[in-house]
Amino acid sequence: MSLAIICPGKNADPWIKVLKDQDPDLEVQVYPEINHPDLVEVVMLWNHPAGILSSFPNLKLISSMGAGVDHILRDKSVPENIPVVRIVDEKLTLSMTNYVIMGVLNFHRQFTRYQQDKKRKVWDMSNPEIDVKVGVMGVGALGGDVLEKLAFMGFDVVGFGFSEKEDFPYPYYSQGQLSEFLETVNVLVCLLPLTPDTEGILNIDLFKLCKKGTFLINVARGKHLIEEDLIIALDKGYLSGALLDVFRTEPLPKEHPFWEDERILFTPHIASVTNPSAAAPQVVDNIRRIQTNKPLNNLVIRKRGY
Amino acid sequence: MSLAIICPGKNADPWIKVLKDQDPDLEVQVYPEINHPDLVEVVMLWNHPAGILSSFPNLKLISSMGAGVDHILRDKSVPENIPVVRIVDEKLTLSMTNYVIMGVLNFHRQFTRYQQDKKRKVWDMSNPEIDVKVGVMGVGALGGDVLEKLAFMGFDVVGFGFSEKEDFPYPYYSQGQLSEFLETVNVLVCLLPLTPDTEGILNIDLFKLCKKGTFLINVARGKHLIEEDLIIALDKGYLSGALLDVFRTEPLPKEHPFWEDERILFTPHIASVTNPSAAAPQVVDNIRRIQTNKPLNNLVIRKRGY
Repeated sequence: MSLAIICPGKNADPWIKVLKDQDPDLEVQVYPEINHPDLVEVVMLWNHPAGILSSFPNLKLISSMGAGVDHILRDKSVPENIPVVRIVDEKLTLSMTNYVIMGVLNFHRQFTRYQQDKKRKVWDMSNPEIDVKVGVMGVGALGGDVLEKLAFMGFDVVGFGFSEKEDFPYPYYSQGQLSEFLETVNVLVCLLPLTPDTEGILNIDLFKLCKKGTFLINVARGKHLIEEDLIIALDKGYLSGALLDVFRTEPLPKEHPFWEDERILFTPHIASVTNPSAAAPQVVDNIRRIQTNKPLNNLVIRKRGY
Repeated sequence: MSLAIICPGKNADPWIKVLKDQDPDLEVQVYPEINHPDLVEVVMLWNHPAGILSSFPNLKLISSMGAGVDHILRDKSVPENIPVVRIVDEKLTLSMTNYVIMGVLNFHRQFTRYQQDKKRKVWDMSNPEIDVKVGVMGVGALGGDVLEKLAFMGFDVVGFGFSEKEDFPYPYYSQGQLSEFLETVNVLVCLLPLTPDTEGILNIDLFKLCKKGTFLINVARGKHLIEEDLIIALDKGYLSGALLDVFRTEPLPKEHPFWEDERILFTPHIASVTNPSAAAPQVVDNIRRIQTNKPLNNLVIRKRGY
């Protein structure tokens, strides 16, 4: 079995090591040095060059190297008949949830305000907490974990997603109920997959529907957010602040207005980083499954987009 | 039944309102305007003037207005034979736990580092997480809740306390095992009651036993910490930083070195503020219990100090 890793700009070495640990017989080729494309039956992808999959006549399985598959599905030349799988990593979920909770708590307990007070030598005990109700957009493995942990901590939580859900353990709003959802919350967390339905969903029309002073946390994809609209929403008071981990262009260009905007907190796409040690066994397991005609884990439904 | 509230410097009005809502027949007098000390059977105290309790010949019950009772027990003239009770408030516990988790997450995810990077326009994705193991000193209602929530979030946690514990749900170290406890953790949370045993426990001898780079969170009492020793421990690298909510003198004097020390994050004693609406029913319930000879709730064991 030959596997090709195609992740330009990303270091494949840690992946090779853990894949080989899992299956010493696996032959691993790394883009751009793929000398035997005809042997490749499995590809692992992260931001691959569009069209490249046509070089692999014997391809049987496509695996994302992370939780997202938008980078795969946007390449319309990816063969329709080959299954796409993604990584669902407990450590990735843990990191993502902890990052989101950090953002919620820093807003709830006004961490930034107190840092500014310290700088100005001000001792002000008044109004130490902002009451929060947290709305999570996207209630899959990641969003579901955020809801569960925040609820356990005593927070009011609400979910929003595109599909209908029955027996969801938290109050849930589906596609047609976006404005009702936004009316009930003042912290808005975006954990949606990036699909044609969700691209640009965080725009001025949505921000206008938010409760005044809502705090935005975007940890999904840069393309969910219309970045100019965030600044307008902050200027108009629709939102009071934001914590962002993802951007349209990464690294964020030096001239980007977010760098100097104190209302926008951000981190350099580190909310959750896929860990090869946790992810590689999933890839190897799916390779065995396809070899033995067993159902694949974490199979992506293309029409749905994740 | 007459009750006296003695909390110089603190506004008693919200307390009076909720006490009266609970029991309209309760007669409430507020220090310094206590015109009928002989009628007083219950006192509610927060930093009362030492010796004042001798003015109440018919006193039957002493209630703290918060979780701590160190402010009561340090007054050696408080009659030995009168029971002291304290407030155990779920909202107070919630606030305290959320504050501590905020501190743990900001250290774990290096929130301050990323804010500094933003200011300097640096995009650095390397080493996004500091692995943490959290040690909680004091495992009563507050410490126990912190342990439970952090464990649920996936963190390794360890408890430390002065008494022996059996069947404690987390690894636990008692008095004689302080150095073993400190060797296993790199975030140290102080939630101890303030007693003669614990006053000044956060001192240079303890900091020397910490893992290099340990992060300190003190949300208990200012007197737990020898403040000069914290600065020495940071200078020497025993500790890498601290989040403090309590101080020897509050408000923190303008000339105090903590204001300008960037390694020390702090807030003005707002981690957890007793909420009269939650606390007053507990006081009224204990009044009924003493009137009907039922066991008191949240009774303080003086010898233990909490």
